[in-house]
Amino acid sequence: MLIVMEQQASQESIEGVIAAIEARGLEARPIPGGERIAIGVLKNKGPVDAAAFLGLKGVKDVIPVTRPYKLVSREFQPEDTRIQIGAITIGSKELTIMAGPCAIESEAQALTIAQHVKQAGAQMFRGGAFKPRTSPYSFQGLGEDGLKILAKVRAETGMPVVTEVMDLATFDLVEEYADMIQIGTRNMQNFSLLRRAGHASKPVLLKRGMAATIDEWLMAAEYILEGGNSAVILCERGVRTFVHHSRNTLDLSAVPYVRNESHLPIIIDPSHAAGRRDQVIPLARAAVAVGAHGLMVEVHHEPDKALSDGAQSLYPEQFGMLCRKAFAISDLMHTNDASIRRLAAVTSSSV
Amino acid sequence: MLIVMEQQASQESIEGVIAAIEARGLEARPIPGGERIAIGVLKNKGPVDAAAFLGLKGVKDVIPVTRPYKLVSREFQPEDTRIQIGAITIGSKELTIMAGPCAIESEAQALTIAQHVKQAGAQMFRGGAFKPRTSPYSFQGLGEDGLKILAKVRAETGMPVVTEVMDLATFDLVEEYADMIQIGTRNMQNFSLLRRAGHASKPVLLKRGMAATIDEWLMAAEYILEGGNSAVILCERGVRTFVHHSRNTLDLSAVPYVRNESHLPIIIDPSHAAGRRDQVIPLARAAVAVGAHGLMVEVHHEPDKALSDGAQSLYPEQFGMLCRKAFAISDLMHTNDASIRRLAAVTSSSV
Amino acid sequence: MLIVMEQQASQESIEGVIAAIEARGLEARPIPGGERIAIGVLKNKGPVDAAAFLGLKGVKDVIPVTRPYKLVSREFQPEDTRIQIGAITIGSKELTIMAGPCAIESEAQALTIAQHVKQAGAQMFRGGAFKPRTSPYSFQGLGEDGLKILAKVRAETGMPVVTEVMDLATFDLVEEYADMIQIGTRNMQNFSLLRRAGHASKPVLLKRGMAATIDEWLMAAEYILEGGNSAVILCERGVRTFVHHSRNTLDLSAVPYVRNESHLPIIIDPSHAAGRRDQVIPLARAAVAVGAHGLMVEVHHEPDKALSDGAQSLYPEQFGMLCRKAFAISDLMHTNDASIRRLAAVTSSSV
Amino acid sequence: MLIVMEQQASQESIEGVIAAIEARGLEARPIPGGERIAIGVLKNKGPVDAAAFLGLKGVKDVIPVTRPYKLVSREFQPEDTRIQIGAITIGSKELTIMAGPCAIESEAQALTIAQHVKQAGAQMFRGGAFKPRTSPYSFQGLGEDGLKILAKVRAETGMPVVTEVMDLATFDLVEEYADMIQIGTRNMQNFSLLRRAGHASKPVLLKRGMAATIDEWLMAAEYILEGGNSAVILCERGVRTFVHHSRNTLDLSAVPYVRNESHLPIIIDPSHAAGRRDQVIPLARAAVAVGAHGLMVEVHHEPDKALSDGAQSLYPEQFGMLCRKAFAISDLMHTNDASIRRLAAVTSSSV
Repeated sequence: MLIVMEQQASQESIEGVIAAIEARGLEARPIPGGERIAIGVLKNKGPVDAAAFLGLKGVKDVIPVTRPYKLVSREFQPEDTRIQIGAITIGSKELTIMAGPCAIESEAQALTIAQHVKQAGAQMFRGGAFKPRTSPYSFQGLGEDGLKILAKVRAETGMPVVTEVMDLATFDLVEEYADMIQIGTRNMQNFSLLRRAGHASKPVLLKRGMAATIDEWLMAAEYILEGGNSAVILCERGVRTFVHHSRNTLDLSAVPYVRNESHLPIIIDPSHAAGRRDQVIPLARAAVAVGAHGLMVEVHHEPDKALSDGAQSLYPEQFGMLCRKAFAISDLMHTNDASIRRLAAVTSSSV
Repeated sequence: MLIVMEQQASQESIEGVIAAIEARGLEARPIPGGERIAIGVLKNKGPVDAAAFLGLKGVKDVIPVTRPYKLVSREFQPEDTRIQIGAITIGSKELTIMAGPCAIESEAQALTIAQHVKQAGAQMFRGGAFKPRTSPYSFQGLGEDGLKILAKVRAETGMPVVTEVMDLATFDLVEEYADMIQIGTRNMQNFSLLRRAGHASKPVLLKRGMAATIDEWLMAAEYILEGGNSAVILCERGVRTFVHHSRNTLDLSAVPYVRNESHLPIIIDPSHAAGRRDQVIPLARAAVAVGAHGLMVEVHHEPDKALSDGAQSLYPEQFGMLCRKAFAISDLMHTNDASIRRLAAVTSSSV
Repeated sequence: MLIVMEQQASQESIEGVIAAIEARGLEARPIPGGERIAIGVLKNKGPVDAAAFLGLKGVKDVIPVTRPYKLVSREFQPEDTRIQIGAITIGSKELTIMAGPCAIESEAQALTIAQHVKQAGAQMFRGGAFKPRTSPYSFQGLGEDGLKILAKVRAETGMPVVTEVMDLATFDLVEEYADMIQIGTRNMQNFSLLRRAGHASKPVLLKRGMAATIDEWLMAAEYILEGGNSAVILCERGVRTFVHHSRNTLDLSAVPYVRNESHLPIIIDPSHAAGRRDQVIPLARAAVAVGAHGLMVEVHHEPDKALSDGAQSLYPEQFGMLCRKAFAISDLMHTNDASIRRLAAVTSSSV
Repeated sequence: MLIVMEQQASQESIEGVIAAIEARGLEARPIPGGERIAIGVLKNKGPVDAAAFLGLKGVKDVIPVTRPYKLVSREFQPEDTRIQIGAITIGSKELTIMAGPCAIESEAQALTIAQHVKQAGAQMFRGGAFKPRTSPYSFQGLGEDGLKILAKVRAETGMPVVTEVMDLATFDLVEEYADMIQIGTRNMQNFSLLRRAGHASKPVLLKRGMAATIDEWLMAAEYILEGGNSAVILCERGVRTFVHHSRNTLDLSAVPYVRNESHLPIIIDPSHAAGRRDQVIPLARAAVAVGAHGLMVEVHHEPDKALSDGAQSLYPEQFGMLCRKAFAISDLMHTNDASIRRLAAVTSSSV
């Protein structure tokens, strides 16, 4: 940490800051600059709380230098985390596509959609049993009945299932049925839920909060790793900005940034980012091209009758098109240069 | 709801939309405009889900007309809600000031600060026992011991106490000790917690989520009212924007907007908005002047030793200054014009 | 336009609104709903100003229905605009890549970089002669000398050149030298400049303002088309959000949205969006995959000695890699499904 | 400036960074920390460009320490700048209120409104002659005729006038007529205009860009001071955020921050922040209470017939109420504590 003093800071103020640093068992190193003095804080094991110094006399700014997270950082673990769910490995070169309806509405609905998405190329099935809804008057999900339908989908299709957990009271239940437990956007900083997920027996899909910085998101993952569960997959789903032509703004630069900072896999949910069907496929292609490890996509065979989020759900045939493009881009991403040139030649001629 | 069709929408698309509306038991009313047709949706009891129509053929936009909330709206209840906590009435002309440390650290700390803030003019005491912290490595609060200290503060000073609840598992405990239960920013859309708060026996202070629209915030309050607890106080504490000279951007236009839309009281937390001590007093003055019913302020007698949020905590003497200015502005707000002119004359001469 | 009345709006208020509509020569059509009345405004040629009605008695909301732009809209011109610059067609299926340094620093620098980028696959050269800089103390560009160097680059490499214009005083000069005139982010709503661009003899590259909605951006383009110049290319370069791991947040959903709303071509500048070299290539790939017509990329042969924006400039060899991936993805985008399957097979085997 | 190295940065990388620093004639000072090394950059006269180092091998982050501005900073000039315009002093304890219509529409309109606002307490008159409009089809102002009307208003009422300049071509004209020249939000980084304003003979009112950081805003002011004109007044008018219940989000924490960082006066425009009449008065009160030196308010005697921004224009009687409250709060702000207590007593009894 670096404490920047005001230009006219008195010697007394400087000594006050040094004393405050040393009172915490840390070392202070004054760095005289052209216009002002700055004081480095050394000997800290892990990040120091800026707040402790920000209000002191003569202090203009406090600048953190060390990242606040540890277990999730690539500096801590240089090699990629790969998470095995049945035959699927999330975090490898192979793109993972999870698809299904926003909410499980019935066994027939779930099975119909599952058959469609499996055939199109999805490796995992998604579907909500407990639904966080902005309005208390909206459909809140089938609850345990929904979980049982998910189990049936898995039995019939062989696809592992991912579903959201909303609270401590239903965590055990979700953990029992799901192959991967989703913590949703609105719960990204529900720290009690994160602590519980830290000793879950299943991998956790942690969605980014709608106004979370990447530091905060990685710190939320740190809660889970700190609790003992290192199978965490991050999921970017758009952040809230002034922009209103899409429901959220998909922050794709998060992918290279997270892949650089952390060893955890990161996937993209283009459906919640877009909020409208016509943007889902373009954003899905972009997500693969930017380097995401996977996609999570909402599909419904009758979106205009869906009980939740119909407007952003793809028709099965659209999802098929998405998968073909997505896998093709993914293949291209992992192709070496010589091959690319050849391919380009092939594709050009085939247009 | 109004469904706007594309200019070139075919008659078939228009009929498709009308059929979809009628299939929901609603009435469709086409409104031909200069350039395109729009279709009004009538006969709905409460808001209709835009998603159901957004993806239909020929639909360009779906525009909600009705507000999504009901019980919290001023149209539902025209007169102001006033919430009585002991001798205090929140929501009246009388400004309510709640103050205390971010976190309860010890009995001595809490009692010392409580005496200070009471003397300065605070009517309620605040202090965290369960602390939501971005980092799993930060101080997480004293838990039940903290609640017991709060009870002691109440016994010794007579001030009612407000403290945050973080999860279902500790809700009963917090409800037992607190005079008002706070639901924090990060839990504003923790719907399980909101449902539980809906049958709490104490008033609930609902902080605005850091990227929540006012519709979403009022819908969160709607969960609590719908559950049967109509004693909800809203608390604006700054929203996340691109701005970085303060920790959050205090959205003061929320006050007139909420007071117009809803009958619930609204207070302001300038401490979390600012994140630095030197902005807290100016923002507190502004909050009173904009028309808030109260303030929630962090105060610490030794902020540079605070275990949490020291940088934004006021020194007791600063808090005293804040109270004097705040009450004076509040008085002025409720003074009629003739008196104001006289007062201005008095104050001018006294500078 | 739709005017939504308050629930308790009096008959007198409703009549007042109707009178205000009719006073403007428009037609009012009341639409009674379940809870409140709304009044449609008809017979308008083009958008009506919401402000005129928003403050009237009993009015709760005013909702625009018609888009504010006309000439730039796809409803006005259904087929894509294609802009010819020498042998290049912007707006076609063929990806257009423009590259070069942020600022022209010398003839040697410009020619060196130009040779590199041409060889790697760029079709146009970019370089700033007049530089808008946040600080008055930063390098402001070579001015006319820079333009002459651009002309030399064109003469030696055959690549058309694009460069930014900053004001009315130097517009003629820039127009004389450039093959395409750039209007930068900070000038997107410099309406005098837009009007001048409306009768320029060269195509205009219009960058999106850093907090501009797409409506505002298209309205800025409308100024240029309205003036008689219909050769406008839009360029998304990231918007300002709370996010700080990249300099701006690249809003890729703008691409499908703009391509749907407007007939104008749209390209992406990943360099200014990222602000750091390591995110430029991933974002460039994503830009092509989302469907942009082109890319504008900063390249420097010695980025650590660049006088401007060195941190985001690619090394020539990185740019070569970017081009190969970008063209390959572009080819894939325009490949039909059957071919894709075959390609995927080819690429898989070549990894 | 502080350059933070990656944990695993090699000795070679560190030496590369040191060499790059020294190649710029600066001094490098390595600061070994617990986990990584940081390198201080010393001997710089003014800020160093971060970009030069951000892309170097082994560099994780570059952290600016020095503020980028100089002439506008309070460290450069500790005492407040006060700007004299006729009998008015902007930047003193006396609140300055500027009011008038958004656009000058006719002599009769301007004179009517001017009489109203003068009587209510405004000291300066505002009105647009050249109007920056989002749409090319909207009313663009009366141009020079509007300036002549402003001159007439000044002659008849004695109030100095402020009006906006839009480009270099009309700068001389505006400078001739106006007592204070406004540079609008959309031109805050129109650097050619700022340079011209730097040798204007009149004070300049510089509005904050709608997504400008305070650093950028102060740097824009630095352009003007650097050119020789030190009479700059800053005007906060709301920034663009995700919030949509007001047109912009008024960033009131800018006031204490700017007053701390800079010696320039700062005023608030609540009209453009709110965008709707019913929020203007509450925000104006808050602006005074937070410590702004003045207000700029839109007033129209027939707002529903206004050619521009009618929805946010106050009726004259509303403006009168605003002035009375604003001056009363302002008086209170500069009253010492003992007086405040007395006043509170007086006001309480008068409610």
